[in-house]
Amino acid sequence: MSSLLIQNVRIMDGEAADILIRDGVVSRIAPGIEAPDVPVEPGGGLIAIPGLVDAHTHLDKSLLGWPWYKNDVGGASLTAMIENERNMKKSLGLDPHVQSMRHALKTAALGTTLIRSHVDIDTDAGLRAMEGVMETAARLADVVEIETVAFPQSGLMIREGTAELMDRALAMGADLVGGLDPCGVDRDPKGHLDTVFGLADKHGKGIDIHLHERGELGMFSMDMILDRAAALGMHGLVTISHAFCLGMPDFQRVEAMLERLAALDVRIMTTAPTSSPAPLVKQLDAHGIRIGAGNDGIQDTWGPYGNGDMLERAKFVGLRNNLRMDAEVKRALDICTGGGAEAMARPRRALETGAPGDVVLVAGETVAEAVVTHAPRKLVVKGGRVTARDGATLVAAP
Amino acid sequence: MSSLLIQNVRIMDGEAADILIRDGVVSRIAPGIEAPDVPVEPGGGLIAIPGLVDAHTHLDKSLLGWPWYKNDVGGASLTAMIENERNMKKSLGLDPHVQSMRHALKTAALGTTLIRSHVDIDTDAGLRAMEGVMETAARLADVVEIETVAFPQSGLMIREGTAELMDRALAMGADLVGGLDPCGVDRDPKGHLDTVFGLADKHGKGIDIHLHERGELGMFSMDMILDRAAALGMHGLVTISHAFCLGMPDFQRVEAMLERLAALDVRIMTTAPTSSPAPLVKQLDAHGIRIGAGNDGIQDTWGPYGNGDMLERAKFVGLRNNLRMDAEVKRALDICTGGGAEAMARPRRALETGAPGDVVLVAGETVAEAVVTHAPRKLVVKGGRVTARDGATLVAAP
Ligand SMILES: [Zn+2]
Ligand SMILES: [Zn+2]
Repeated sequence: MSSLLIQNVRIMDGEAADILIRDGVVSRIAPGIEAPDVPVEPGGGLIAIPGLVDAHTHLDKSLLGWPWYKNDVGGASLTAMIENERNMKKSLGLDPHVQSMRHALKTAALGTTLIRSHVDIDTDAGLRAMEGVMETAARLADVVEIETVAFPQSGLMIREGTAELMDRALAMGADLVGGLDPCGVDRDPKGHLDTVFGLADKHGKGIDIHLHERGELGMFSMDMILDRAAALGMHGLVTISHAFCLGMPDFQRVEAMLERLAALDVRIMTTAPTSSPAPLVKQLDAHGIRIGAGNDGIQDTWGPYGNGDMLERAKFVGLRNNLRMDAEVKRALDICTGGGAEAMARPRRALETGAPGDVVLVAGETVAEAVVTHAPRKLVVKGGRVTARDGATLVAAP
Repeated sequence: MSSLLIQNVRIMDGEAADILIRDGVVSRIAPGIEAPDVPVEPGGGLIAIPGLVDAHTHLDKSLLGWPWYKNDVGGASLTAMIENERNMKKSLGLDPHVQSMRHALKTAALGTTLIRSHVDIDTDAGLRAMEGVMETAARLADVVEIETVAFPQSGLMIREGTAELMDRALAMGADLVGGLDPCGVDRDPKGHLDTVFGLADKHGKGIDIHLHERGELGMFSMDMILDRAAALGMHGLVTISHAFCLGMPDFQRVEAMLERLAALDVRIMTTAPTSSPAPLVKQLDAHGIRIGAGNDGIQDTWGPYGNGDMLERAKFVGLRNNLRMDAEVKRALDICTGGGAEAMARPRRALETGAPGDVVLVAGETVAEAVVTHAPRKLVVKGGRVTARDGATLVAAP
């Protein structure tokens, strides 16, 4: 943890001020701070925003650094995409540590200072992906915080031995228990969710479940999740990622579910997807449900999209939710910074005293302009340490 | 119209070849072309794609070059947004020629060589916007082709005198008759559409109607449009922009409408919107319906989004339609190049003999990569003339 004085920045496009970070924490924000014992970075009047937060990604999956992967599989069948990925990872001999270094540094260069990564656990690759991402997390601890979710991408009940691997991953230090479409993939929602919640209970860890199931199927699985969260008293410890079913066009049905989610303080992670129904920011906000956003996998066998830029993701949140007012665009950004960190049960990223010393300086006239243009990142500071300049990290990717 | 030999490019990421443009038209594509009489541009192995086509935008609306416009209106009320825009244009004293120059050159710098621009016609501003955009079209004729649609943004039946102004705009040389939500804005679909089709019939011009109306309301207006197109024999002369109602979740209902659209060769323009239902590429393709794409207004009083980049728009088309395979991403790009031009009833932009000599050189390994990263545009050629290098036009914006 380091100390730094960032001079002359516009705090969220407001008044010019200096930001003093001491021992990794924002200790003061004011004009003309004197701190002779601390190194100085001139801010040049740039806009200061908090460190960006990617609350849902897959660091072990990206093909960054490889020749272009020609996708002939498409998006029609979830099973086909899962099989294809497991096979491609094997045949290419992807090294999860190398790939996660490339991915994490790409997003860190663009201002992300906190990541939640789901990591594949399956009976083909065993714990290799988790080991690789954990190695990356340790090596990049000063650049970007990475927490891991043990994620049964290929299914939990349909592939014997996966639950035992999940158990070992959690014993090794994985931060959360993952899950995936209890009906759609495992075809056994009770078995799947009893296993996931059993592991969480045993290891005393939280849960983050991928739920792509739409409409009534998703609502059914969500109810099953909430029943278990309630039974185990897991208030604030369960996250549902994607939650497409909350975008179903039945206002009353969705409202009733949002009340249940709010009562259990369940958190929702979204990519603000463009081709699926999606939970809507204003509707969740009205219930006080914490929302994070993520880039999900980038440039992998699932699809070619994604570049690791959480400022562009804020633009997607804005577009998906029809957020046009400047104040609304700031809320979109908040979901990709402070709000996302809160949804991860981490200290709120914000430009205020006591917050983590994670600061990004961006070009532009206003925060809204910075979001809609995903403006150049001139400086990234993590815990008071400069980690990137002009879009490039000081640590080089392998 | 100029001649140019572009050497050593990869045609749509395929084999390396030279492109010879003579008198504005692609005359030959082959390796090692000799043409001593023609100026040469080295292509350096970059990917060559056809000139990009923005088939739906509003050149008269952008606030580019102005201080950031703080949006406090949002997206809730169409009427409020229309009123606000008309008032802001007056109070700011926007010059439609200057604004359209800025907007057109921004998109031209990013490789767009053909634009269809709707232009506001209303009883406050009269024909000022049309005059300004026409002046821009004339001045930039060598950089980007611009066709204009006389667009009654503030309503046609509810503002007396608008139809007469539309008539004058068409007499002045506007290329198409525009229209807008016959039910939603004018509250008089029969009056609105009779006027629009009457003007088209009188001036012998095509039609391009904004139709944001959703669900059954949009289907009703669409039927009213098609009735008139059929009665006047306007095969291939009617375009419906946005057509959100075609994204309604009733497959059979939509299929029946698509058959009607196909029979009249109606063209559909889309922005691939993220917060609205939208016509889907694969479904329209199955009926052979021509599709164009556009950026719509960029950075205006309606909202902060948009940057004029039609390669990024191809990414949005891909994301909205869940296009993941490389071949599918190429179709998304085609809609923003050749397919878009065809939908405008203009010569197909394509890298083939006889096509317009509009070529863009982009960095990257594959076309799909260029789309998903909206890769840097290294060179833009319009009708055999170099118009932009490294993202900057040779003509400067005012
Ligand atoms: Zn995911
Ligand atoms: Zn429009």
